[in-house]
Amino acid sequence: MRTQVLDDQSAPGFGNRLSSAVRRRQSAIAVGLDPDPARLWRGGAAIPAGGDPAAAASSAVADHCRRVLDATAPACVAVKLQSASFERLGPEGARALRDVAEHARQLDLLVLLDAKRGDIDVSAASYADAAFGGVDTPWGPVPGLRADAVTVAPYMGRDSIEPFLRAGRRIGGGAFVLVRTSNPGAADVQERALAGDEPVWALVARLVADLGDAAGGPISDVGAVVGATAPERLRRLRELMPRTPFLLPGVGAQGGRVEDLAPAFGPGPGAALVTASRSIVGAAGDGHEDPGPAARRAAEDLRALAAAL
Amino acid sequence: MRTQVLDDQSAPGFGNRLSSAVRRRQSAIAVGLDPDPARLWRGGAAIPAGGDPAAAASSAVADHCRRVLDATAPACVAVKLQSASFERLGPEGARALRDVAEHARQLDLLVLLDAKRGDIDVSAASYADAAFGGVDTPWGPVPGLRADAVTVAPYMGRDSIEPFLRAGRRIGGGAFVLVRTSNPGAADVQERALAGDEPVWALVARLVADLGDAAGGPISDVGAVVGATAPERLRRLRELMPRTPFLLPGVGAQGGRVEDLAPAFGPGPGAALVTASRSIVGAAGDGHEDPGPAARRAAEDLRALAAAL
Repeated sequence: MRTQVLDDQSAPGFGNRLSSAVRRRQSAIAVGLDPDPARLWRGGAAIPAGGDPAAAASSAVADHCRRVLDATAPACVAVKLQSASFERLGPEGARALRDVAEHARQLDLLVLLDAKRGDIDVSAASYADAAFGGVDTPWGPVPGLRADAVTVAPYMGRDSIEPFLRAGRRIGGGAFVLVRTSNPGAADVQERALAGDEPVWALVARLVADLGDAAGGPISDVGAVVGATAPERLRRLRELMPRTPFLLPGVGAQGGRVEDLAPAFGPGPGAALVTASRSIVGAAGDGHEDPGPAARRAAEDLRALAAAL
Repeated sequence: MRTQVLDDQSAPGFGNRLSSAVRRRQSAIAVGLDPDPARLWRGGAAIPAGGDPAAAASSAVADHCRRVLDATAPACVAVKLQSASFERLGPEGARALRDVAEHARQLDLLVLLDAKRGDIDVSAASYADAAFGGVDTPWGPVPGLRADAVTVAPYMGRDSIEPFLRAGRRIGGGAFVLVRTSNPGAADVQERALAGDEPVWALVARLVADLGDAAGGPISDVGAVVGATAPERLRRLRELMPRTPFLLPGVGAQGGRVEDLAPAFGPGPGAALVTASRSIVGAAGDGHEDPGPAARRAAEDLRALAAAL
């Protein structure tokens, strides 16, 4: 505990916070939440129908997410919240997102907002305010989500990413920039060869490495989203980004295997997080009365696989 | 009026809806709303302080946006709503966004949601539900924003864009994909040369052209965001995307000039929309008692410049 406190005081950047959290919780797993109102744990049976659908669905979604977190948090270090799943429920969904983030914090999980935002500087700053510390208005401060990190899209370049770093650094938060994603469409732009023959993802990887803080810890505060579905890219990506924390989606439902991800973990605790959504939350299959134990086991299995790398 | 009705019945795709609207309103201008709570028209004087800051700020923002629309709508065909500005006000901001979109519809403006979303297929579909028609849940239907089009980021490739097209086409909506943006950071990824020597933006332009509907009208339902700050690119972009509607930000505060945008307008009504935010909304300068007439004049000036191309 003493080391922990010293770490936090001397180096409060996101990279150091991430390293500390992974060591403390002995886990490199981020449970992913992308709730579908039609497939919630316990089917939302406790929520009466007949009221406002958005409010009822959002309440059921938040309840589901809290149950998933209660069941899986002991095996995890973070939660990855898919913003889209909440946004489609409108204002009530935005409220559910806040409630779930707060519940995750109470369980000592880092909160990763998977929003993949990217815009010109002034708008990127607004997105960053929403994800991190909020905004001052003439009517008083409006709180942000207080996420620990947010995913960011790189197509618009450096000045569309930097506002997230400026806002994040004020509260020890970070960003994970899309570099080589897990979906088939990664072939369309990211895998295309540039003049000089390296792919577009290598160019973005260099940008990400360059944007990381110079604090000197083993892990920087600017991360990379790197799909677990293309493990043959990992060694090169790690060379290009030696201090960058990797967020690794695509395990399970999308076909990636934790056993193939060793190069990502090289730099030590916090160097890589494996994130899994459907393969944890849906581990028990549909219609199971108490899906918690199966989800917990799935998360523990991933944790053990990652710990063995 | 009769022609209009026939148009809508025979070809309800977004490209045809856009062409019809530009012809009907004799305008190719989209007023941009990215409200800053600290710089609202009338300073929000009518909203008492002391309550919940998020609710008060969101109410003031919505009021501001309605005033801007009331003043400028006669000169415009569309409104571009910057999602970030509303998201940073939390759930109340999401409600304000809906209110403003509804007000714009009542003024017969097309609603463009500037959200720059991009994610794997299942999450892209959720974002599309949020922007367009909403989602069915076990508690009933949850409405979407009912936008006419949404801006989309291309870094994750074709399968991250197609869900927006599927959801949009159900309600005559479309998408504008980021191709060559107006910010300096466009140089970092978009302007880099690929093997074969064409820039990344040309690759994305080909993808956008390919994704457009095959309905055969002069304007397709998949648009491109093309910054007005790089007019020397327009001729080539138009060659690569002959039927694509261009959304042209970057006029005014960012340095672009409408006079330089002629190649974008070549294919006829709906081929290009000029969008301006600060140069319309802030035309009167800060602290002006009634900024409406100056904003209206600024929008009318842009409309006339675009009409002369």
